[in-house]
Amino acid sequence: MRVTSTKMHTPWFLVLLLVFVLPAAAFASGDEALITRASQVLGPLPASMPSAENPITPEKVALGKILFWEPRISIDGTVSCSKCHPIPLYAADGLRKSVGHNCKENPRNDPTVFNAANQISEHWIGNRTSVEDQAKQAVTGPPAFGMPSYESVEKVLRSYWQYETLFRAAFPGEKEPVTIDNFAKAVGAFERTLVTPGPFDAFLKGSRDAMTAQQKKGLGEFMDQGCVGCHFSPFAGGQMYQKFGLFAPYWQYTKSEKIDEGRYAVTKAENDKYVFKVPVLRNVAMTRPYFHDGSVDRLEDAVRIMGKIQLGKDLSQGQVQGIVAFLHALTGKIPDNALSVPILPSLK
Amino acid sequence: MRVTSTKMHTPWFLVLLLVFVLPAAAFASGDEALITRASQVLGPLPASMPSAENPITPEKVALGKILFWEPRISIDGTVSCSKCHPIPLYAADGLRKSVGHNCKENPRNDPTVFNAANQISEHWIGNRTSVEDQAKQAVTGPPAFGMPSYESVEKVLRSYWQYETLFRAAFPGEKEPVTIDNFAKAVGAFERTLVTPGPFDAFLKGSRDAMTAQQKKGLGEFMDQGCVGCHFSPFAGGQMYQKFGLFAPYWQYTKSEKIDEGRYAVTKAENDKYVFKVPVLRNVAMTRPYFHDGSVDRLEDAVRIMGKIQLGKDLSQGQVQGIVAFLHALTGKIPDNALSVPILPSLK
Repeated sequence: MRVTSTKMHTPWFLVLLLVFVLPAAAFASGDEALITRASQVLGPLPASMPSAENPITPEKVALGKILFWEPRISIDGTVSCSKCHPIPLYAADGLRKSVGHNCKENPRNDPTVFNAANQISEHWIGNRTSVEDQAKQAVTGPPAFGMPSYESVEKVLRSYWQYETLFRAAFPGEKEPVTIDNFAKAVGAFERTLVTPGPFDAFLKGSRDAMTAQQKKGLGEFMDQGCVGCHFSPFAGGQMYQKFGLFAPYWQYTKSEKIDEGRYAVTKAENDKYVFKVPVLRNVAMTRPYFHDGSVDRLEDAVRIMGKIQLGKDLSQGQVQGIVAFLHALTGKIPDNALSVPILPSLK
Repeated sequence: MRVTSTKMHTPWFLVLLLVFVLPAAAFASGDEALITRASQVLGPLPASMPSAENPITPEKVALGKILFWEPRISIDGTVSCSKCHPIPLYAADGLRKSVGHNCKENPRNDPTVFNAANQISEHWIGNRTSVEDQAKQAVTGPPAFGMPSYESVEKVLRSYWQYETLFRAAFPGEKEPVTIDNFAKAVGAFERTLVTPGPFDAFLKGSRDAMTAQQKKGLGEFMDQGCVGCHFSPFAGGQMYQKFGLFAPYWQYTKSEKIDEGRYAVTKAENDKYVFKVPVLRNVAMTRPYFHDGSVDRLEDAVRIMGKIQLGKDLSQGQVQGIVAFLHALTGKIPDNALSVPILPSLK
């Protein structure tokens, strides 16, 4: 910062006040500083979440949306992507743990598929490499679609002549486009379009009134208290793994019914015990219940627990309320395309 | 018919031919005759299905659509109206028998809720008086939503502040609008808007090309063979009860796993044994499988069986194909409002 020359006889403390303290205070208390800081560590959502391996095309997205709603590729005819990721509930099902075919309980709470495709991995313990991998593995997943094989899924899809046409349009030039890998790519391409910018993004882009004073204060707390240490990026999470319960075992504070060893199940590394992927916080106010086991119902409680066992802090009621208010500013607009229902192919 | 005078010396058989036979043949083979006949016994769909007891208002429809998608009023959080009546599958679930909370099997195949509100009753055995009655009873139905009481449903709805606002708008002037009866009225009002006019309606209204030649032939067969004897009205059904298996026990021709005594369960009258409500055939090509127990997968087979056991006829392959083609002309356009997904209220 360049200090401009001051007139003679000006008291030294006034100089200091004018040059350093007042501008800094004004700057720090203003929206610009908040925007600058938040843009560095969080930032606005991108328009989509592209992938070099699976470029987004309109044809893939159109097919993927239909497949997202398709229950006839599940062993009991009741499970589609949209069963556990219902659009009207912000693509999470509101259950502690999702329920797959024949009422089989899933091991963990289901994350929303909105803003999900740019994470380091999918699922709480990172055992899915991408949204495409997640979609592919779900169809044969024992607590999910429960199909006996990928071939059985392809066989069902091939029994609907309209799928032939749709796959051919989405994967031109392929001799046999109706494959499980193309199923995964189509669903993945659809999911890569599911970004939900909200008031926070509008604020970052200069609409100062997009967030309330309390939300702005909460955003400050979210950064000051250290939440962004893990919940960074435009997705406010999804970029790293972290032990759940740095300061105390999580199950002493949550209402967990059993202890989940987290990513240890994947790596068998001792220091991965109780480690989970840091969840994306976009639309978190709409996707209760919370944590990997859905053991906490209220966002206030979740924030308080996070302060306690991740940051070692007893957040005040005001701090909790501020952070919760900010998290509501992460509730975004669902893309129009996701809000319209596709009509599924019929047997000829 | 007035016979006009003919010139002298015209042979008598030519007079007869000109005056009676040719015009009649041309008339009978033409679209006008078909339209006239079909309009008398079938007819185009109305714009909606109003009810004096439950007038359709935009506010009720808006609320009813949200409630239609709401799973949190079920005992396990998985059942909404849209679970068994998924819009992408023409509001039927494609299962032999629907699956309610905790995977409980329903006693019969679920009919679509499209074009459903103008029937003499709801459900296969007529044990629901109206769509409103059906919606109300579903929430506590043991194989449906499974809630312990109407009060428990009201309690859940009242825990979402947005529902308070929505119910108040839909039922103005009521001191406590969030009630189970108003839930039923709102869902009913939404369902009363779910009419799906299709090619058949366009044809009846004068668009001759709306139906193919085979579909027109099939429509003729549908009337000539006697299908309309039960499947009459613009809904092609839903107006009477009839014994399933007039010429032979139905289970000798379907793939029924057990014998369902039908409406006998409601009335305990001996002559109601194996009697079911004649189903609406609108969108029947999109709502397989068929019959009260979903025991037949293919529309062709269903038509053939109906000919055999309801009409005592072995329909030819051509007749079956024609009737099936006509039934495809009953596949209609889903209303735009039903094709857009509502966002469900969130806890404050």
